[in-house]
Amino acid sequence: MPLYEKISIIGLGLIGSSLARAIKENNIAGALIGFDENPDHNKVVNDLALVDLIAADLVSAVKDADLVILATPVGAYSSIAEIIGDHLKAGATLSDVGSIKAAVFDMINPHISSDVHLIPAHPVAGTEQSGPKAGFSSLFHDRWAILTPPEGADQGTIDKLSKFWQAVGSNVEIMEPKHHDKVLAITSHVPHLIAYNIVGTARDLEEVTKSEVIKFSAGGFRDFTRIAASNPTMWRDVFLNNKEAVLEMLGRFSEDLTALQRAIRWEDGDALYDIFEKTRRIRQQIIDAGQEEDVADFGRHQDE
Amino acid sequence: MPLYEKISIIGLGLIGSSLARAIKENNIAGALIGFDENPDHNKVVNDLALVDLIAADLVSAVKDADLVILATPVGAYSSIAEIIGDHLKAGATLSDVGSIKAAVFDMINPHISSDVHLIPAHPVAGTEQSGPKAGFSSLFHDRWAILTPPEGADQGTIDKLSKFWQAVGSNVEIMEPKHHDKVLAITSHVPHLIAYNIVGTARDLEEVTKSEVIKFSAGGFRDFTRIAASNPTMWRDVFLNNKEAVLEMLGRFSEDLTALQRAIRWEDGDALYDIFEKTRRIRQQIIDAGQEEDVADFGRHQDE
Repeated sequence: MPLYEKISIIGLGLIGSSLARAIKENNIAGALIGFDENPDHNKVVNDLALVDLIAADLVSAVKDADLVILATPVGAYSSIAEIIGDHLKAGATLSDVGSIKAAVFDMINPHISSDVHLIPAHPVAGTEQSGPKAGFSSLFHDRWAILTPPEGADQGTIDKLSKFWQAVGSNVEIMEPKHHDKVLAITSHVPHLIAYNIVGTARDLEEVTKSEVIKFSAGGFRDFTRIAASNPTMWRDVFLNNKEAVLEMLGRFSEDLTALQRAIRWEDGDALYDIFEKTRRIRQQIIDAGQEEDVADFGRHQDE
Repeated sequence: MPLYEKISIIGLGLIGSSLARAIKENNIAGALIGFDENPDHNKVVNDLALVDLIAADLVSAVKDADLVILATPVGAYSSIAEIIGDHLKAGATLSDVGSIKAAVFDMINPHISSDVHLIPAHPVAGTEQSGPKAGFSSLFHDRWAILTPPEGADQGTIDKLSKFWQAVGSNVEIMEPKHHDKVLAITSHVPHLIAYNIVGTARDLEEVTKSEVIKFSAGGFRDFTRIAASNPTMWRDVFLNNKEAVLEMLGRFSEDLTALQRAIRWEDGDALYDIFEKTRRIRQQIIDAGQEEDVADFGRHQDE
């Protein structure tokens, strides 16, 4: 018996379409409905038969659904909730896959009735690619799905949604929404911002040409271009909706960078060595935790 | 006929041992001599038969060599040059593989006679791993080797060293030393510094535990840990010897980051989108230039 009778996914990009694939592959839904405001996405998903039905509009997409998952950029949540709010089934679970969590309640709660269970979620998974063609069913394997239920949320609903994420291969963590936003600010949001920034800085130099940056990128720069190639709309919305935590972590980052800069200026080799030595271990711990593969240079030379 | 009668490699870590493998594989040397001040490295290289002979000391290592390549951290160049300077063969080529180039002349020139050709070089290649076991012969394939000959250097010597790097699979670029240091400051040195810094910042947080940073690193952070796992001695020496260019690029980076920070604080979504959109294209250009593989997420999901 499928875990949910009827699941609706709103937003069929990389994450939404990967989730559709994983739901199908693991028989998690009696019926799987999809909808994207971009007709091209709907067409791709329909052609690939990733869902049972592409809905005609948002309202019909959520009709009778037991689980509705928002997989659009978070900036669209408020307007979507306004449209679907009155059409959600009583007792339905409303969730999402967004990278920020505390702001979700403010965006959605005003539009839904108290008999709908809002349990935000964030699968910590993705690639730099976008759109339904880039999705794949194993995207969530061995990754963490963080659920951020509000205080007093129904335990049965939380447990069922946890089972859902486990069924697509993820480990589940329950977290307080504001704490989630702090953790992700440092593990994801600030790294993306820094990557976008260094790529931007490199592009704008006068003395070093863009062609030189590209040719000699194997020295380290190219690693940063991967996450700087991520979906710009999604990331704009992340930064607008996790302002406080991002600014705090960014403040710490800049403070630390200034200290490193000073060590370079004053040629304090011991201080530099000390910092460079300590950071080395953390990668091994990430590998040991199953969150990274144990191959040099991201496996770039594996075929040679 | 081998390109050089006798080649000596001083320093048998990741780069030196990879070069030894590539020289052997492509029959570039009549005889290949190696030496490392670390006896463990010498033993590994000897056991793997990566060179014809491990020398007993620096002086005997360079005796009669037509090409001597320094593959140690650049901080050791000066003291090595002092020891080997008087023992280099007249007409020999002295080169290196260091990541900084302008400072090489000051470190080496005082110790060598005018009949030795100093042609510094920098293969823009590497992994986050260290030591002779981590090396492999294809490390330099399709990467750029940058030669930075001094003004008035012998053209035949430059051409022969270019052939050497081509023989191990690299493309060769001739560059003015100071320009090299600026290009690499932005494509390699500052990216490494930023990576070391964000990993350090994450480690030092109070509210977010190290275990959380490790668990949720797939959101982007783990990409940064790769280059922050690189050889700390090598990188300390890079920053101490490319101070001027690194500080300049770092100044630009910080200025740009402050602008991004301000856009977040004032919720200027258009400015954020604009920056995030522009940086996206540069990765495709790096892929098109053959300096990155065209797979999502560094191919992390390829086996699934």
